[in-house]
Amino acid sequence: MSSPSSAASPPPPPPAEQRRPDPVRFGIMGCASIARKLARAMLLAPGAAVAAVGSRSEAKARAFAEETGLLLRHAPRLHGSYEALLADPGVDAVYLPLPTSLHVRWATAAAAAGKHVLLEKPTALCAADLDAILAACDAAGVQFMDATMWMHHPRTAKMRELVADEATTGDVRVLHYYRMIALSPLDIPPYNLLPVDVINSLFSFRANEEFLQNDIRVKPDLDALGALGDAGWYSIRAILWAVDYELPKTVIALRNPVRNQAGVLLACGATLYWADGKIATFNCSFLTNLTMDMTIVGTNGTLHVTDFVIPYEEKSAAFNMASKSKFAELHIGWDPLPSKHVVSTDLPQEALMVQEFSRAITLQVSILKAQCSGLAGGRAAMIGSGRGSRVRVTRRQGN
Amino acid sequence: MSSPSSAASPPPPPPAEQRRPDPVRFGIMGCASIARKLARAMLLAPGAAVAAVGSRSEAKARAFAEETGLLLRHAPRLHGSYEALLADPGVDAVYLPLPTSLHVRWATAAAAAGKHVLLEKPTALCAADLDAILAACDAAGVQFMDATMWMHHPRTAKMRELVADEATTGDVRVLHYYRMIALSPLDIPPYNLLPVDVINSLFSFRANEEFLQNDIRVKPDLDALGALGDAGWYSIRAILWAVDYELPKTVIALRNPVRNQAGVLLACGATLYWADGKIATFNCSFLTNLTMDMTIVGTNGTLHVTDFVIPYEEKSAAFNMASKSKFAELHIGWDPLPSKHVVSTDLPQEALMVQEFSRAITLQVSILKAQCSGLAGGRAAMIGSGRGSRVRVTRRQGN
Repeated sequence: MSSPSSAASPPPPPPAEQRRPDPVRFGIMGCASIARKLARAMLLAPGAAVAAVGSRSEAKARAFAEETGLLLRHAPRLHGSYEALLADPGVDAVYLPLPTSLHVRWATAAAAAGKHVLLEKPTALCAADLDAILAACDAAGVQFMDATMWMHHPRTAKMRELVADEATTGDVRVLHYYRMIALSPLDIPPYNLLPVDVINSLFSFRANEEFLQNDIRVKPDLDALGALGDAGWYSIRAILWAVDYELPKTVIALRNPVRNQAGVLLACGATLYWADGKIATFNCSFLTNLTMDMTIVGTNGTLHVTDFVIPYEEKSAAFNMASKSKFAELHIGWDPLPSKHVVSTDLPQEALMVQEFSRAITLQVSILKAQCSGLAGGRAAMIGSGRGSRVRVTRRQGN
Repeated sequence: MSSPSSAASPPPPPPAEQRRPDPVRFGIMGCASIARKLARAMLLAPGAAVAAVGSRSEAKARAFAEETGLLLRHAPRLHGSYEALLADPGVDAVYLPLPTSLHVRWATAAAAAGKHVLLEKPTALCAADLDAILAACDAAGVQFMDATMWMHHPRTAKMRELVADEATTGDVRVLHYYRMIALSPLDIPPYNLLPVDVINSLFSFRANEEFLQNDIRVKPDLDALGALGDAGWYSIRAILWAVDYELPKTVIALRNPVRNQAGVLLACGATLYWADGKIATFNCSFLTNLTMDMTIVGTNGTLHVTDFVIPYEEKSAAFNMASKSKFAELHIGWDPLPSKHVVSTDLPQEALMVQEFSRAITLQVSILKAQCSGLAGGRAAMIGSGRGSRVRVTRRQGN
């Protein structure tokens, strides 16, 4: 239905705040295998564009850009060094999929160059390195996010909603990075508090011989944390997610971790203890069948998900939830039965992550613009949230 | 289709070995709540009949027999003491659901009276007590079985078939009872062997205040093992089942078990270590939501079952199995997907257990008859197996 007047004159431009913001211009820094998946995500994510690809040689950057379809669709500039990528004024943010041992060097360099940082996990080899990265981002006023994609799946938000019934205390906590927990016992007094919650997480995949010989994740000079940094990262994140990021008081490694000849972990695990009696156990491994379990047992409910990191299928993901489960009469069944929840998504979780990261940057830019217009001054800090993620946006204003 | 000759004369009796054997005549010894479920099973199980009910008073025995429908359908004799039940010559086998602290006394008495013994779990408070019970059964030449019902569900047999692809070594092992593993560390040298298998089992239910104050399972003089003996029994059995009853080398309790004021365990757990690198963890509790998980991760496959002890529904039970799981291209999904297996059963698992126990007894009687006919002498020992269970049938002849 159109009126003659609307047909006669062109529609007025939308008000400024409704205009679609310019896309965040990404530079992909390194052409690791996992970067192919993120390149696809950047092609799919609204609000993002790949402006540049940097590698140790321009030829490698070109091959990557061709193979992933970036060259054809986003025509990124190709850089033959990471330094050149960071010097590119047309890059707002870098995605950094380099081996973990290079993270502290290049993430701090990116921040110093004024680029926002989307960093592959594990973020760092130790807490001190991560602190250095975060400090650099903070000092430069750039956005930081670790690339833990399953945090951005709408299933994760749905699970949080159901788990939060029991687990959250109402306050919003922020933790979108993980400080590696030392796997050595700390002595604390015994505690026998109620309620006791139990979280188990398993993440394993069976690596082939080629992987076990040559992958960066079995090399002490590249990804020295091995299975703990790769598979264990996800399990530990799942556990921390389940307890709303409350850190445990004690972590005790399982006995007999499996290491390769260079000493890199191929399989290990730990039990985590909280002061209020919560217990979590995880096992991670490169040696057993692909498994991605998160099980949360609370006083009143139980959640099961068996593909928490990479859902079985991209467009739809499920989990099972039981609440106040009882036995049927004579204990010959359950009543009520657990329910299956299916959550669909149009965009892959990696694209949602890129979108969320881009939104946070755009939001930060808007705030800065507002601040420059005299609407706010000093230090502005805010929490942005969406689709199951938490994004830290901090900005320290001049002096 | 009948011929004139068959119509004219009565059919010849079936050969002796095809005749339906007389049912095994059960005596129910104690009217615990769980006995109601077993009474129902005995009404349903082919080859079983309830010949007598014994309690501390005849009135209690009568009330139980009435309430369960036994009085109407099997017209059992009612005894006002356990001694009277054991003196009943019309009882072949006793089902013994008494509190654990009474097991050694009454199971050995039953064996001494020549009765086969179907004993509720946990079988005993310690290995020495169980050994005494087994020795008594062995000396009397009677059948022993612990009443772990899920072992007899056809789902369990189906899972065994799939797990056995990797886990079994071809030999048949027998273990239909569990010697409680001491929850204290044993020192063994470190091992780093492959393949590493992981088994996790959770069993909990949230007991109400009435249970936590008054149930026999929180009383140190009745079921002193508390949650470990009740819920933990199943998890430990699941773990041993998964490794085909190979005992672990080391068992380390989780920290901070929860006890009631009398010192009875309300929640606890442990990690079990095998010499070849297998690791299992269980948590059991009276304090968290009803949960019955068994997860087995092997080199080539993963099995998930979330209702392993009491299936969600009585007639049909499922589990999920993944085998040689890989990521789909670009790691955006799984290929192949895990498969769901559904196993149906006409008889409840408790009735299958009673049937299996009765079969073993009938088989034993047949063997004895054959032996008395001079077909075999000395010691005859055999293993009977069926529907996912293992039944020990031993008979020491003469001397």
